[in-house]
Amino acid sequence: MKTSPYEFKLKRQVEFGDTDMAGIMHFPNFVRFMEAAETAFFRSLGLSIVTTGFDQPIGWPRVHADCDFIHPLRFEDTVEIHLLVREKKTRSIVYGFIFRNLNEHPAREVARGTLVVACVTRNSHGGRMVAVPIPQPIADKIGVAPKEVLEKIYKS
Amino acid sequence: MKTSPYEFKLKRQVEFGDTDMAGIMHFPNFVRFMEAAETAFFRSLGLSIVTTGFDQPIGWPRVHADCDFIHPLRFEDTVEIHLLVREKKTRSIVYGFIFRNLNEHPAREVARGTLVVACVTRNSHGGRMVAVPIPQPIADKIGVAPKEVLEKIYKS
Amino acid sequence: MKTSPYEFKLKRQVEFGDTDMAGIMHFPNFVRFMEAAETAFFRSLGLSIVTTGFDQPIGWPRVHADCDFIHPLRFEDTVEIHLLVREKKTRSIVYGFIFRNLNEHPAREVARGTLVVACVTRNSHGGRMVAVPIPQPIADKIGVAPKEVLEKIYKS
Amino acid sequence: MKTSPYEFKLKRQVEFGDTDMAGIMHFPNFVRFMEAAETAFFRSLGLSIVTTGFDQPIGWPRVHADCDFIHPLRFEDTVEIHLLVREKKTRSIVYGFIFRNLNEHPAREVARGTLVVACVTRNSHGGRMVAVPIPQPIADKIGVAPKEVLEKIYKS
Repeated sequence: MKTSPYEFKLKRQVEFGDTDMAGIMHFPNFVRFMEAAETAFFRSLGLSIVTTGFDQPIGWPRVHADCDFIHPLRFEDTVEIHLLVREKKTRSIVYGFIFRNLNEHPAREVARGTLVVACVTRNSHGGRMVAVPIPQPIADKIGVAPKEVLEKIYKS
Repeated sequence: MKTSPYEFKLKRQVEFGDTDMAGIMHFPNFVRFMEAAETAFFRSLGLSIVTTGFDQPIGWPRVHADCDFIHPLRFEDTVEIHLLVREKKTRSIVYGFIFRNLNEHPAREVARGTLVVACVTRNSHGGRMVAVPIPQPIADKIGVAPKEVLEKIYKS
Repeated sequence: MKTSPYEFKLKRQVEFGDTDMAGIMHFPNFVRFMEAAETAFFRSLGLSIVTTGFDQPIGWPRVHADCDFIHPLRFEDTVEIHLLVREKKTRSIVYGFIFRNLNEHPAREVARGTLVVACVTRNSHGGRMVAVPIPQPIADKIGVAPKEVLEKIYKS
Repeated sequence: MKTSPYEFKLKRQVEFGDTDMAGIMHFPNFVRFMEAAETAFFRSLGLSIVTTGFDQPIGWPRVHADCDFIHPLRFEDTVEIHLLVREKKTRSIVYGFIFRNLNEHPAREVARGTLVVACVTRNSHGGRMVAVPIPQPIADKIGVAPKEVLEKIYKS
């Protein structure tokens, strides 16, 4: 049985506008990059975070985000954002992220983070978001990183 | 006859996250601050840029923006964004902006900019934006800076 | 003995540019607002995050950030960012943040977060950041929230 | 005689965080993308906007920016930012930018802008920026778009 993809790597180069007066990448950009990797992961599966074509439009509000900052990134550093699906629950997904600075040799881990997103739809009257099960056609395309893979990465 | 307001002053303090590695405010923030002053001006008139309560929802897409950068702003500088309505046309408004650094004595002009916004609505079928006349209840509340006021500011 | 301040409340209004296509405040802005509250807290103590006047310039790199998103914020909502000093260690500070939407009555908690910052200086040769004890004149001005205060807030 | 490059094309995909509640790319991002194209152009020449290795460090403060917004960009649109060197003066460079949405067929022009940057250095005492001639090794690498090229693009 084929396993659905459970990881994705996005490369980004730190822009001048991503830096702050300390000369390093301003830290909320790490959080922004997590979302960029998540949406690129969905595209790689033929999906989009902005979902159409289901019975009712679903959305993916962010429920939790965290990040540990280990080493700074600087202007023109190329960073690899390594997304791993850590958990796929009925109504939510837990993503882990490892950030690596590819301008250092060997590439150096500079941060790691987590993003938890819920699957929701809106009441028919335009209003409240309600958590719903991830539609099967989406859930089928998203794998979960095997325990060994996660252990190897998170113990290092 | 009462004249409607044609100017507004908003104060903002430059945040750490507004700076870049050159140690000064990253320049797209000047453009962002223009919009902040525009929306605050609307609120001061009892209006909102996000309009409800008219026959059809209208929007204000940006048609043009420009800015001349004269002196840099730094972290924790307090900047006054002085908005002036330079022109009010049937379907668009031209705003002028003077940025003054209030941390210098006397306050120093650090930038000046322009923002042109169009008044639009959407076709009933959810689609294309179409320019429409500014609804009268909105147009009535927005004055235009007298020629003398503009000349005094723009010649200085 | 006088207790140094251990909390601070900053008000911010959600700007048009803070929103995303889901119609709510884009979530990295919560993280940005934490930093805005931290720097405003320092100013309220007569300090600045960008420190001068000590033997060697110190900086406050972010070590960790997290945020739980409970309810969305929307354009023109006024949010209170309630900072509490949860821990003051020799070389780092742990801030807690409660976000409350003041446009709802009663004010509603919409998010809570944490920010951990380290106190560092740079080697004389322009290079590596090294963790150092928080200078006494700064440490003296920063209090720590009493256990009862934290329990009351974090149990609610 | 070899002509130095006078144009550069950068591709960017509109991210979720680039959008606003109107469902389109928030307009200051066009300005941010101009700078991204400028720094990528410099890299393509073996240069960096953050210059090292000259007698004194030089910088490129922004003097003027403008942009006309013709059609909106939406989430996941791929935009080509076409940079053209319109003028190369002793102490400044004028860049023109054409933005094209590559998700439409044929690609559609959605915006055009200008960025003027000055070449400066800092006084030895850490202070004021002073305009200086562009160092010859940099000036030699930067061409100027021929009149015919500019006319063809700007008349269309």
